[in-house]
Amino acid sequence: MNGAKSLVQTLLAAGIDTCFANPGTSEMHFVAALDQVPGMKCVLGLQENVVTGMADGYYRMARKPACTLLHCAPGLANGMGNLHNARRARSGIVNIVGDQAIYHRPFDAPLTGDTAGMAQTVSAWVRTSNSAEELGRDAVEAVRAASTYPGQIATLILPADVSWQEGGQVGTPMAAARPSPLDPGAVDRAAKILRDRDDVLLLMAGPAVLAEGQKLAWRIAQATGAKVMASYVTSHLARGQGRMPLERVPYSMEAAIQALKPFGHIILVNAAPPVGFFGYPDMPSVQHRSDAVFHTLSRPDQDPVEALAALAHTLGAPEACIPNPGPRPEAVRGTPSPEGLAQTLAALMPENSIISDESISYGRGFYKFTHAAPAHDWLHLAGGAIGDGMPVATGAALGAGKQRRVINLQADGSAMYSLQSLWTQAREQLPVTTIILNNSKYNILIGEYANVGATPGDTAMSMLDLGNPSLDWVRLANGMGVEAARATTLDTCADLMASSFGRPAPFLIELMI
Amino acid sequence: MNGAKSLVQTLLAAGIDTCFANPGTSEMHFVAALDQVPGMKCVLGLQENVVTGMADGYYRMARKPACTLLHCAPGLANGMGNLHNARRARSGIVNIVGDQAIYHRPFDAPLTGDTAGMAQTVSAWVRTSNSAEELGRDAVEAVRAASTYPGQIATLILPADVSWQEGGQVGTPMAAARPSPLDPGAVDRAAKILRDRDDVLLLMAGPAVLAEGQKLAWRIAQATGAKVMASYVTSHLARGQGRMPLERVPYSMEAAIQALKPFGHIILVNAAPPVGFFGYPDMPSVQHRSDAVFHTLSRPDQDPVEALAALAHTLGAPEACIPNPGPRPEAVRGTPSPEGLAQTLAALMPENSIISDESISYGRGFYKFTHAAPAHDWLHLAGGAIGDGMPVATGAALGAGKQRRVINLQADGSAMYSLQSLWTQAREQLPVTTIILNNSKYNILIGEYANVGATPGDTAMSMLDLGNPSLDWVRLANGMGVEAARATTLDTCADLMASSFGRPAPFLIELMI
Repeated sequence: MNGAKSLVQTLLAAGIDTCFANPGTSEMHFVAALDQVPGMKCVLGLQENVVTGMADGYYRMARKPACTLLHCAPGLANGMGNLHNARRARSGIVNIVGDQAIYHRPFDAPLTGDTAGMAQTVSAWVRTSNSAEELGRDAVEAVRAASTYPGQIATLILPADVSWQEGGQVGTPMAAARPSPLDPGAVDRAAKILRDRDDVLLLMAGPAVLAEGQKLAWRIAQATGAKVMASYVTSHLARGQGRMPLERVPYSMEAAIQALKPFGHIILVNAAPPVGFFGYPDMPSVQHRSDAVFHTLSRPDQDPVEALAALAHTLGAPEACIPNPGPRPEAVRGTPSPEGLAQTLAALMPENSIISDESISYGRGFYKFTHAAPAHDWLHLAGGAIGDGMPVATGAALGAGKQRRVINLQADGSAMYSLQSLWTQAREQLPVTTIILNNSKYNILIGEYANVGATPGDTAMSMLDLGNPSLDWVRLANGMGVEAARATTLDTCADLMASSFGRPAPFLIELMI
Repeated sequence: MNGAKSLVQTLLAAGIDTCFANPGTSEMHFVAALDQVPGMKCVLGLQENVVTGMADGYYRMARKPACTLLHCAPGLANGMGNLHNARRARSGIVNIVGDQAIYHRPFDAPLTGDTAGMAQTVSAWVRTSNSAEELGRDAVEAVRAASTYPGQIATLILPADVSWQEGGQVGTPMAAARPSPLDPGAVDRAAKILRDRDDVLLLMAGPAVLAEGQKLAWRIAQATGAKVMASYVTSHLARGQGRMPLERVPYSMEAAIQALKPFGHIILVNAAPPVGFFGYPDMPSVQHRSDAVFHTLSRPDQDPVEALAALAHTLGAPEACIPNPGPRPEAVRGTPSPEGLAQTLAALMPENSIISDESISYGRGFYKFTHAAPAHDWLHLAGGAIGDGMPVATGAALGAGKQRRVINLQADGSAMYSLQSLWTQAREQLPVTTIILNNSKYNILIGEYANVGATPGDTAMSMLDLGNPSLDWVRLANGMGVEAARATTLDTCADLMASSFGRPAPFLIELMI
């Protein structure tokens, strides 16, 4: 068998059954192997950043890696923005990148580029396979690296001749690497702080903010009086009825500093100390008090549920039910507002919805109004590279087996980075409702410009305003096979949301805000 | 003055007056400086690969660099595909990439990434500026590097605090680096081969294939009987009446090997020995005869016009007019075909048109039918990373001061990589006519699949076919403010072309092929 076939068989044996793809010439033998070896679901994205963003969304819901199939050097480059986001989200991806045949590289053909150098910038693990004989083993190690808790980008570079040469050997899957053991004493030290002090924050990230971790954190908080917050850099939060009214550390420096001011002790549960997204003149880099003391209960490579369970046990924290958040909000009518849209969303979202949130500035306060919605999952842009909301929504729909409604809250400027996602949603008939928040500007940047201490003039606005010409998202969606409609009121938006939720297909609502 | 202002003033002093931009928060002080210092034309692209592709197209027509303005790490990554193409096209770009404030980098905020590592993969020159005091000088050197003959990617990384700190000093422009001197003896050696042998090919690339170089090559060919071809990897060719009937080395390995078979001696005029775009099983990497002898008349860093003029002089080649190519073709009616579209294009294109050709498989034979068109310039995808046709068309329109018609021959699959270009065309009211060649598939890959020795099955076609759902390019263009219409016959296509050529605005024709 050739290398490509051994690769496909190894991936399937290791449980990788979904491939997000945008192949090129150097990948044709791999494409042929995918054709000839049954079992891999291949999903085409029309630009590579859609492909990598889908793999990220898939991992967040399926909790197992998909593989990608990208074209050599610039093909990988096109997908690196969302690999950056996936790296920050700690999503596992077996990122397969074709490349020139090994013997052809020295000829520096036009498409030759520094594939490995590019891959290093976004990957935890990179290997260029050297022969068909080694490819199966390389693939096994790539899967293991991608599956290393809680998830990593593992890039396997596949020269074309390694793909087409005979001698391929199917690799034997290895057991996934387990989370690292907890640090001796970490639980006892955290328990002591919680007993001794009344200014303690449990700052949680990663799997700590899913349902099980929240239940334990709630018990600990009830027993000790500690506060609990989620890191701003959180890729996936369990929310709604039965979950904590858990807020993230705010995005803005001022608000974050204010929110963290009460806390002299911060216990990190898979979180990092909170820092600003950017540096600003005359502002600190960190958001916590300068005298705050940090205590690490668990690192990102450790299991926070194990840590929280041990902590609750050590504290003797009794069982405590997360209280009912009260009645579900009702849909709001009239002029769109962030609060109104959030309440309408809470009123209408189906149970077990998945929210893919790239609402940027508009959605900052949505949590407060959606605690009483049915249980749902909320996915965030963890790496800050805009353009992941739509592909993550697309991949999440597939990662959840098309069984759950995905609602993509999507800023218009960010949507333009990876709008090709809509085509894949139509092709795969995915249950995704996209709500485009059309304000015709990079609103977050206009806010950031104010920090410079001036109001934007014509030249600045020529780089911040999207209104000339206006984007027409109904036409854009229709052009890619997705049904769509415009809403200028929340009434219409609510009607469109409700009707879209009943359809096993994508729909786009262009909400004029 | 702060660093940002010193940067803008230095760029303006060095003759850089156009900035292709997609800024983020870390670039806000630079945006403010562009606002406050008059003189820089700022052009927004809605995704970074549009931005970098525009800068490439601009350089090809203006023959001087523009600057870019990109956001830190993943923002740069999004634009690297077309930086790769620009590198292969040897276009000069002052690629300005914002980054985290220097003191904020160690905190590893979510958007922090290996900006410099990414830049290295596509740049000839990379520098991270360290202070406002040094930024002006760094900018001068960046401009010089970008302008180094025939053009390079120079990436200047601009940490946010370098931008906002006081102490900026405007740099003093340096003279652009001249082409390297010709190698002693190179002209005489080429002349000897041309006199002694009758199996000689002049293989030309870079500025050799513009009008002046062609006139000299024609004289040499007439005097010696040598053949002249252009490298396949050619970013910009002068064509039409008054220019040579110059063909490129074909793309396909078989055709290229056949075309180069007669030549035992190949004189390289800014060209590299011809190699395949990819390696294929049982095929050589090179396209020339294994016994072919190469003679370098001029390297890419040398002036081919100087070299060709010296060669013509040494040979005593008399003046020779390039003959009239005969009557201009007439527009073809009926069912679209490559030949028919090429002839229709030749019949209708305005004098001095600029063709941005990303027609991929459909347009391979267009040259043959367009020699008798009025003088025009033809821009190719030199780096093979699909997605440059539309942004290059956009930038070329600006590089030509909006004074020349740009006609973008655009494959549909490739168009989807950077369709956001249409919005910038509408915003800037650019005279660009886009002809989308809609065949609803990655046709070139279906051809490449055949080389694997099989016909694509369902899984393979799920990665090669774009027909489910169909893309509707009229709606996509309209959604971005560009007027558009569909043509199913060449008659309609011709009518739409002719009417669009008279309008100072973009237009898109979706030609169903």
